Amino acid sequence: MTENSEVTYKLLIEYDGTNLHGWQIQKQHESIQGLIESALEVVLKQRPNVVGSGRTDAGVHARGQVAHFCLPDEVDEKKLHASLNGLLPRSVRIIDLQKASDRFHARYDAVLRTYRYYVSIRPRSLDAHIRWYVMPEPDFTPMNNAAALLIGEKDFSSFCRTKSDTENRICTIESARWMAESRVGDWYFEISANRFLHGMVRTIVGTLLDIGHGKLRPNELPRIIAARDRREAGQAAPAKGLILERVTYPNPNE
Amino acid sequence: MTENSEVTYKLLIEYDGTNLHGWQIQKQHESIQGLIESALEVVLKQRPNVVGSGRTDAGVHARGQVAHFCLPDEVDEKKLHASLNGLLPRSVRIIDLQKASDRFHARYDAVLRTYRYYVSIRPRSLDAHIRWYVMPEPDFTPMNNAAALLIGEKDFSSFCRTKSDTENRICTIESARWMAESRVGDWYFEISANRFLHGMVRTIVGTLLDIGHGKLRPNELPRIIAARDRREAGQAAPAKGLILERVTYPNPNE
Repeated sequence: MTENSEVTYKLLIEYDGTNLHGWQIQKQHESIQGLIESALEVVLKQRPNVVGSGRTDAGVHARGQVAHFCLPDEVDEKKLHASLNGLLPRSVRIIDLQKASDRFHARYDAVLRTYRYYVSIRPRSLDAHIRWYVMPEPDFTPMNNAAALLIGEKDFSSFCRTKSDTENRICTIESARWMAESRVGDWYFEISANRFLHGMVRTIVGTLLDIGHGKLRPNELPRIIAARDRREAGQAAPAKGLILERVTYPNPNE
Repeated sequence: MTENSEVTYKLLIEYDGTNLHGWQIQKQHESIQGLIESALEVVLKQRPNVVGSGRTDAGVHARGQVAHFCLPDEVDEKKLHASLNGLLPRSVRIIDLQKASDRFHARYDAVLRTYRYYVSIRPRSLDAHIRWYVMPEPDFTPMNNAAALLIGEKDFSSFCRTKSDTENRICTIESARWMAESRVGDWYFEISANRFLHGMVRTIVGTLLDIGHGKLRPNELPRIIAARDRREAGQAAPAKGLILERVTYPNPNE
């Protein structure tokens, strides 16, 4: 232990993004990062920087966001966990809080991010805040044929919000598939990649739904990708259906 | 067709009961039955009686409530369906509206009601309105051993709210079981019976959780049932975790 050694804590977080302004801290709006930092400050009388695995947009939800923060000294994890949930609004829950290795970094160490986009083709109330009601019913077969064409290492500029200032637009998609759920009429699109661009999953979902509604053919997708032009892809699907399901790290103990 | 013939319509309804005062119409509070009757009145300029398969308490939800109403003449089902969802609050959705046989009765014809009670042993936000966070973690094995003892035709007075004026306390439970969900920490209790008494599922869940927490032994359940005394059973679990999942009719086309 050197004089400068710090203790790193890892958080597993679920949030309902409906009334929140995304992960990243902002001056005027409630962000998840800001809420957690403020709660930590109340308990610890210091405000560590809470580093997430990645940002989620306003209105987007998470079941498995991961973050870390560093403290100069060890704390009672169970007490801190309970205190944070006591201070945070109901829309943000710390599922787990554990000491991590000193070198753990929620963003740099993440090797895979998995998102799901939930839709229904029947009206819903109980999960209407996390599911987009799609009308008319799309044909999921061509949507899955097209989804398979997304897999691999590609430049996804066509699916990146134009105002994004990210220079590297290359992502490696490991899997992308629409799945029927046990309840008839409910479907989700699950996509895993090493990284995602701004608005990427929602634009992919919107484009695949254009295919499912017969506005585009599945074999037009390679051309849309190759164009590297946002105007070629479809409209972004609304934020409410998108959930960051899990973040994968190489060390399963972390 | 006789002069008095009416047309019967069947509704499949989902509702988030959080801010509603149960199924049954009341003078001063918003009930699901009242909301649907009022919406029908706006569209049809007449107010048919909407008959549900059964009542749900304030705060209880449904994914598959069934109801019927009769009209003197046929209407355009698709238009009426869309109009109702346009008029109803977001918390109540008509999933399906179809013409039924003239003799169909949502309550008298139902042969089986299936409820689920959802719990989690980890904090949740996205479905916190439909799931009870149970602490400490109960042991589900003795809870399932006890649940098996509920099955059959029995007098369930011990699980019926004392102020209930229902005289017949005999119900036939077809199945009752705790199931682990795909997400670690999430469980539900599913119970199917020909009928349920007032507060019965929630009192069964509370009693089974007492067993899971070691406050009662599974083999005490037969004694509790035999007592036919509400004071012998455990506390009722909160309404928020309870969902009427489906109602079964002998004719699968109905």
